[in-house]
Amino acid sequence: MINENEIIHNLRSRSHHFIGDDAAVLPYLGLSKSVITKDLLVEDVHFRTSYFSPMDLAHKALHVNLSDLAAMGAQPLYILCGIAIPNNLHSYSCDFLNHLTASCHEEGVILIGGDTTSSTDKLSISITAIGLGEILKYRSNAKNDNIICVAGNLGWSNLGFFALENSTAIDAKYISSFLRPKAKTQEGAWLAKETNVTSMMDISDGLYVDLKRLCAASNKGAVIDLDMLSFHLEPDLSLQTLLEGGEDYGLLFTVNKNAFNELFNSFSTTFGYGIKVVGHITDSLSVVFQKKGEFVNLNITPFSHFGEKP
Amino acid sequence: MINENEIIHNLRSRSHHFIGDDAAVLPYLGLSKSVITKDLLVEDVHFRTSYFSPMDLAHKALHVNLSDLAAMGAQPLYILCGIAIPNNLHSYSCDFLNHLTASCHEEGVILIGGDTTSSTDKLSISITAIGLGEILKYRSNAKNDNIICVAGNLGWSNLGFFALENSTAIDAKYISSFLRPKAKTQEGAWLAKETNVTSMMDISDGLYVDLKRLCAASNKGAVIDLDMLSFHLEPDLSLQTLLEGGEDYGLLFTVNKNAFNELFNSFSTTFGYGIKVVGHITDSLSVVFQKKGEFVNLNITPFSHFGEKP
Repeated sequence: MINENEIIHNLRSRSHHFIGDDAAVLPYLGLSKSVITKDLLVEDVHFRTSYFSPMDLAHKALHVNLSDLAAMGAQPLYILCGIAIPNNLHSYSCDFLNHLTASCHEEGVILIGGDTTSSTDKLSISITAIGLGEILKYRSNAKNDNIICVAGNLGWSNLGFFALENSTAIDAKYISSFLRPKAKTQEGAWLAKETNVTSMMDISDGLYVDLKRLCAASNKGAVIDLDMLSFHLEPDLSLQTLLEGGEDYGLLFTVNKNAFNELFNSFSTTFGYGIKVVGHITDSLSVVFQKKGEFVNLNITPFSHFGEKP
Repeated sequence: MINENEIIHNLRSRSHHFIGDDAAVLPYLGLSKSVITKDLLVEDVHFRTSYFSPMDLAHKALHVNLSDLAAMGAQPLYILCGIAIPNNLHSYSCDFLNHLTASCHEEGVILIGGDTTSSTDKLSISITAIGLGEILKYRSNAKNDNIICVAGNLGWSNLGFFALENSTAIDAKYISSFLRPKAKTQEGAWLAKETNVTSMMDISDGLYVDLKRLCAASNKGAVIDLDMLSFHLEPDLSLQTLLEGGEDYGLLFTVNKNAFNELFNSFSTTFGYGIKVVGHITDSLSVVFQKKGEFVNLNITPFSHFGEKP
C-alpha cells in the first residue's frame, strides 16, 4: 500500500517545483493578467477506468483545464493536482500522476503542488491551472451581427464516448477526441490578440448549450445556421450530435462581420485548418435555428452532469 | 432538481468577482510573493453529513485551506471551489455553497471561480486558496538547537472527532475544534515577520507526524520533551492523543534558542495565549522522546488518510 508521503516524494522527484510545503509559492507573474481555473474529473461521471488508461486520463485531466485557459487566451504556466484515491486504484493513481507530470512536461507546464487523500469509493481528480495572457477574451462581449465561429471539431467526442460506453466500433478519431482532447492553447492565444474577436469560450458542454451561455453573458441572442453546420456532417455524425455533443474542447468565438473573411484566411494559413461558421449574434436574447432562410425547431437535449448523460 | 447554471447564478449573485467565464482573472498580485494551495475534503473520509452541518463544513473547508496559507505566513485573498455533488445532497450542497460565500466574507476572502459537477456517490469538495506574503516561512530551514514550538491546541480535534464518531459526550470545545477549526492567519503572518522563526508549517496530521516532516525537509532531527508537553494534558486528553491527533490546524515552528524568551512574551502579549514548547531540533535525523532527561520509547500510530482512521 502506498501512502501520501511516498506519492509526494515521487512527485517531488519528477517536478522540481513541487516543494511539498503547505502551499506552493507562485513565481512572480509579472504585469500580464494571470488567469486561474479548476476542473473536477470524477470517476463514472467524467471517466471510467475500464477504458481510460492512466495515460489518457492524465492527458485529459490536464487538457480540459488548459482548454479553460485557452478559452480566455491565456498561456498555461502552473498546475496543482488534488486527487482522492480509493483503495482499489492505488496503482492506477500512481500511474496517472506519473503520466500527469509527463503531460505537463510536454505542454511546458509546471506541477507546483497538490493534495493527496483517500476516497471511500470513487477516484476524484481536481486540477487547478494558472496561466498568463496579455489580452484576455471574455464571454460577455459578443455584439449584434457578429459571426459565431468554432475552431475545432463538433460532436466527435460524443460519438467516441457513446461507442466506448456501448462497446460499438467507430472511427478511432472519435475515440481519441473523447479520450485525449487537446486544448487549443495556440489558437486561443492567437484569437485573443485579434481585436475583431469580441468574445470567446471553450465548448465543454456542447455547441448549443455553450452558445446559449455566451449569449446570456453578452445579453444577446443568436441564429444558428443549420446549412452552414451541415457542411461538417459525416456518415456517423448527425446534426443533433454536432449541436449537443459535449467535451469537444474547441473554441467558440464571435467576430466582427466585416473582419471575418480576413480572419478566416489568416487562421487557416496559421493553423492549417478552417474555422467553422455557426451563425450570427442577434439582439433577440434567444438562440434559434435557421435552414434555407426559414426558422425551424429542433429539440436539443442539453448535456448535463446532473442528467442521465455522463 | 438544481442544475449547474442555477448554482453558478447563485454564486455570482453572492460573490461579485465570480464572473462565470471559463477561468477567473486574478487581480494583479503586486510584488509580494503569492502563495497557492489546494485541499480536498471527501465525504466519509474527512467529514460526514450526519454531524457536519453545511455551515460547519463550509467553515472547515475554507479554514483548512487558509491554514495552509497561514503556515507559510501568507494572508488569504482568493479562493476557487470545485464541488462534486451526489443526487441525494443537492440541497445540502447549495447550503454549503451559500455558507462558503458567507465564511469567505467573514475572512475577507473573495470567491473567484470554481467548478460544479455531479458525483455518483460521495460529496467531494476541492478548494484552491491564493494568498500573499512579504516574507514567507518554509519547512526546510530548521537549525540545530532551535526550540520547537506550537501555537494552538493539540489533540482537541481528535477527541472531538472520536466523540462524534462514537456518539459519546465530551466538552463542546473539543467538538468545535474538529467541526470548526480556525486558521491561525494572524499568528502565521506575525511569526513570518520574525527573523528568529526559522521554519513553519501547520499541524494537519498530528504533531509527531508533522514534526517528522519538518525535520525531514530541514534534514534534521528532534527531541520531543514529554515533560513540557505534559503541561497541556487535560482529564480527557492523553499524551498519546496530544502527539497523534490530526486536524488541529495549529502552527508548528522553530525558533532560535536565544530569541525564544522574548518571542514567547511578545506572542502572548499580542495574541492573549501562550506558545507551547515541544522540544528542540537536533542534528541526528531522528525524532525521539525525552522524559525527566532520559530517552523513552513511545508507540505513535501516525494519522493516515489511507489507514483505518479517517
